[in-house]
Amino acid sequence: MSGWVVVAGLGPGAEDLVTPEVRVALDQATDIVGYSPYVARIAPRSGLRLHGSDNRVELERARHALEMAAQGQRVVIVSSGDPGVFAMASALFEQLEASPGFAQTDIRILPGITAMLAAAARVGAPLGHDFCAINLSDNLKPFDLVEHRLRHAARGDFAMAFYNPRSKARPHQFARVLELLREECGPDRLIVFARAVSTPQETVQVVTLAHATPEMADMRTVVLVGNSATRRVGEWVYTPRGVTLAGEGA
Amino acid sequence: MSGWVVVAGLGPGAEDLVTPEVRVALDQATDIVGYSPYVARIAPRSGLRLHGSDNRVELERARHALEMAAQGQRVVIVSSGDPGVFAMASALFEQLEASPGFAQTDIRILPGITAMLAAAARVGAPLGHDFCAINLSDNLKPFDLVEHRLRHAARGDFAMAFYNPRSKARPHQFARVLELLREECGPDRLIVFARAVSTPQETVQVVTLAHATPEMADMRTVVLVGNSATRRVGEWVYTPRGVTLAGEGA
Repeated sequence: MSGWVVVAGLGPGAEDLVTPEVRVALDQATDIVGYSPYVARIAPRSGLRLHGSDNRVELERARHALEMAAQGQRVVIVSSGDPGVFAMASALFEQLEASPGFAQTDIRILPGITAMLAAAARVGAPLGHDFCAINLSDNLKPFDLVEHRLRHAARGDFAMAFYNPRSKARPHQFARVLELLREECGPDRLIVFARAVSTPQETVQVVTLAHATPEMADMRTVVLVGNSATRRVGEWVYTPRGVTLAGEGA
Repeated sequence: MSGWVVVAGLGPGAEDLVTPEVRVALDQATDIVGYSPYVARIAPRSGLRLHGSDNRVELERARHALEMAAQGQRVVIVSSGDPGVFAMASALFEQLEASPGFAQTDIRILPGITAMLAAAARVGAPLGHDFCAINLSDNLKPFDLVEHRLRHAARGDFAMAFYNPRSKARPHQFARVLELLREECGPDRLIVFARAVSTPQETVQVVTLAHATPEMADMRTVVLVGNSATRRVGEWVYTPRGVTLAGEGA
């Protein structure tokens, strides 16, 4: 039996947002690897080994998966959301580049519903026009680069989605992000704090930048910022598809 | 029986990329509304009316859905990919804003696998770091704004995903996009042309900007452009998670 590695997106949390393609891979697997809270989402069954690990050990986890596949095991690395969006797929290829001995591994990446799109769907269509996705964590990049990208995103009038907006280790940085956004986009721009979407812990808050505070976000929150045309209609938040239409409606 | 409108993402094409949540909504529907090629993906069954329509009639389609829901029908508006990414969700809210009589309609938006993430998964993890999604169509916005956003995306060193890159009506514009990208990003930047991903017509091409030609894209293609650190490892294309790592490997 030849082994393989699949990197699969489990979606934001709800079971009915897991694609049938991912479900098949999970059913065929001998080993599940991932950050412990994501591995905990997989139902145990006979013949399936679960290998939960800590956050921030992505490269070790990828190596473990490649080693097991080389021994003939069928390994699924699980990510929350989509594996290609600030998740395990890049880590696997970083490890593959560093470990030429694994070059022949049978690898597949299976997409999933990423958090920003689940959050957007919950409130309407805030990402209905051009948008950016930015990881606010500075674990792997300097915070200066985050600021640089935020300014370009704002000046390009992109809607924005932020992953990993705030952690206990760097509570001040998200305050700085809000300050920069107010400077670039003004106080009336709409911002959405969507936490744990599609899980029993789901909470969603929509406010203007003037009323946004750092405490509205934590590491389970995805933050969406509208573009200059984003507006409310009833309970919903949406971004018009066209610039002309935005002007007409404003 | 009270009516409702669901806007559902069917994913990029394969049946096993349709979420169970969307499948349930399709099973409960009395009416399916959408662009004809997407409606054609729904299996006919007794009691289900299929209403296919042309492209570029999004607001009329949205109004039709709201009218049917007001009469007690259970309507699913189908989009390819995700309904909130350059698709029908924004059009529905535009129509809702213009038609206050429908304000009480029971509406839900159900996310789907959007084309850029399906394409990214196919080639590796090219969107593994901060990225932008840009609709290159100028149906609803001036092409100047497209150029403005492309420059900000390039100068922010975002990876990029382009929807609707090229149509028969405006073949010259995508040539201009490639020219602008070569100017901003240099000739060695990786670019991916992913057509009809997950369907029997799927084709994927990875080249550098120096070798990219407008003919590589059509309206069924999603185009991905790497950031300055995006690289190949074997057959794969990926963007490292961190800037430090990118520097080390370059």
